[in-house]
Amino acid sequence: MKLNFTKMHGCGNDYIYFNCFNQQVADPEALAIRLSDRHFGIGGDGIVLICPSDVADAKMRMFNADGSEGKMCGNATRCIGKYMYDNGLIDKPEMTLETLSGIKLLKMVAEDGKIVRVTVDMGKAILKPSEIPTKFTGDLAVSVPLDVDGKQYAVTCVSMGNPHCVVFVDEDVETLDLPAIGPSFENHEMFPERINTEFIRVIDDHTLQMRVWERGSGETWACGTGACAAAVAAVLNGYCPKGEDITIHLRGGDLTICYTDEAVFLSGSATTVFEGSVEA
Amino acid sequence: MKLNFTKMHGCGNDYIYFNCFNQQVADPEALAIRLSDRHFGIGGDGIVLICPSDVADAKMRMFNADGSEGKMCGNATRCIGKYMYDNGLIDKPEMTLETLSGIKLLKMVAEDGKIVRVTVDMGKAILKPSEIPTKFTGDLAVSVPLDVDGKQYAVTCVSMGNPHCVVFVDEDVETLDLPAIGPSFENHEMFPERINTEFIRVIDDHTLQMRVWERGSGETWACGTGACAAAVAAVLNGYCPKGEDITIHLRGGDLTICYTDEAVFLSGSATTVFEGSVEA
Repeated sequence: MKLNFTKMHGCGNDYIYFNCFNQQVADPEALAIRLSDRHFGIGGDGIVLICPSDVADAKMRMFNADGSEGKMCGNATRCIGKYMYDNGLIDKPEMTLETLSGIKLLKMVAEDGKIVRVTVDMGKAILKPSEIPTKFTGDLAVSVPLDVDGKQYAVTCVSMGNPHCVVFVDEDVETLDLPAIGPSFENHEMFPERINTEFIRVIDDHTLQMRVWERGSGETWACGTGACAAAVAAVLNGYCPKGEDITIHLRGGDLTICYTDEAVFLSGSATTVFEGSVEA
Repeated sequence: MKLNFTKMHGCGNDYIYFNCFNQQVADPEALAIRLSDRHFGIGGDGIVLICPSDVADAKMRMFNADGSEGKMCGNATRCIGKYMYDNGLIDKPEMTLETLSGIKLLKMVAEDGKIVRVTVDMGKAILKPSEIPTKFTGDLAVSVPLDVDGKQYAVTCVSMGNPHCVVFVDEDVETLDLPAIGPSFENHEMFPERINTEFIRVIDDHTLQMRVWERGSGETWACGTGACAAAVAAVLNGYCPKGEDITIHLRGGDLTICYTDEAVFLSGSATTVFEGSVEA
């Protein structure tokens, strides 16, 4: 049996998207492992199923390249919005999306009948160290000292549903040796569920440059929740204003974040690369 | 304008194949660069155009991921044979293929109307050191000493249209640190046009295990001409018999080589992964 798919990416975070309004995908865990392989499969960071929902316009199920099910991904969420509108599954440039992290609201910008930009309400930032979780005490972990491999860092911890440790550095982040230092943050004893780490240089009060080391994945070209955490941390440290757009330069492209008390809003592009069919 | 393509691989050496009997591909160099990207494009080691020929059943043009045009690739050649037969462009399981390295003869095995195995006549092995080219003197470079980064190796040099340096090692080749030692072979002063290097462990007199460092590409999962060179070197060193099938275990799968005075024959599988269309 052949399955139709669409390959899309948000800032280079690329997934294989299946429309499950008109076809069934059996055993998505095994399919994700087989199809994500970049030489023997289609190639991608995983697969995403766009399914009917009882409580929203659609339901997202996402499976990583290792077959594990993911809860939420800002980059994939934007691509689903574009897919739904561009393919006529919704008729207005906004929608609700059911995910394992709750129902997300997407607002979109269309040009010539196609979506070019999507804003996702990513929910509230969680700042209490024990809830992130980290072993830091108190109500906030903002610019707290952390010894990593004998070097002293000042770190700020934020959860966007998943845990982040944000490190502001003075040097060009492109010069950092992430494969060397990333795993030492990821597996540090202060982070009981491991952690995603963002290395940030402040360009100006509305612009950050970022590289990210994701737990379980290593360095990635873009991490939507990481960009949110970075903007929240920049506000908490006084580098950027609250309630205004902050542009984040990632290796895979730019994201724009607005941090308010009610929610963190993530905006960025979504791109359709090609369509295909594969034996499943 | 949309272009139809088929993604295929031979031992994990994967290209994006375009049928140019029924469509035109403009500016293949730029297309190869854009589409080969594994996050922002389709992803592959390059693109291959299957074109009409005045002198053979088809003509192969291949473009690497950096846009440069390649002369010959045993893995791509097998995939073209499968594409031509499976899609009814030839009606017998054999064909001639025009390449920049001359006309190649392909013989195939079909099961249930689809090609499962292809044998390619890869032409004669070139053994004269000056023609490979290397700076070694004499008629052969078989088990000659070579100092690389202060370590002494015995190397055997073979050209299959492109230059190869074959190194037999005693340890499991999976334990070698190729990114460390590969570039030192590639850019060694004895190889004026740089070189592809194969690291080989002899399993028995009909079986080799191989890893390959390709000039300009780094480690790859499979190299058809490298497998040919490895089998030729194994015969020249007395490890394997001439004129019989030698199975080579590569990271991406198995290839079978038969070295005779007339030609080197390369046999292996070819796999269709998916079909798609992309805006060009």
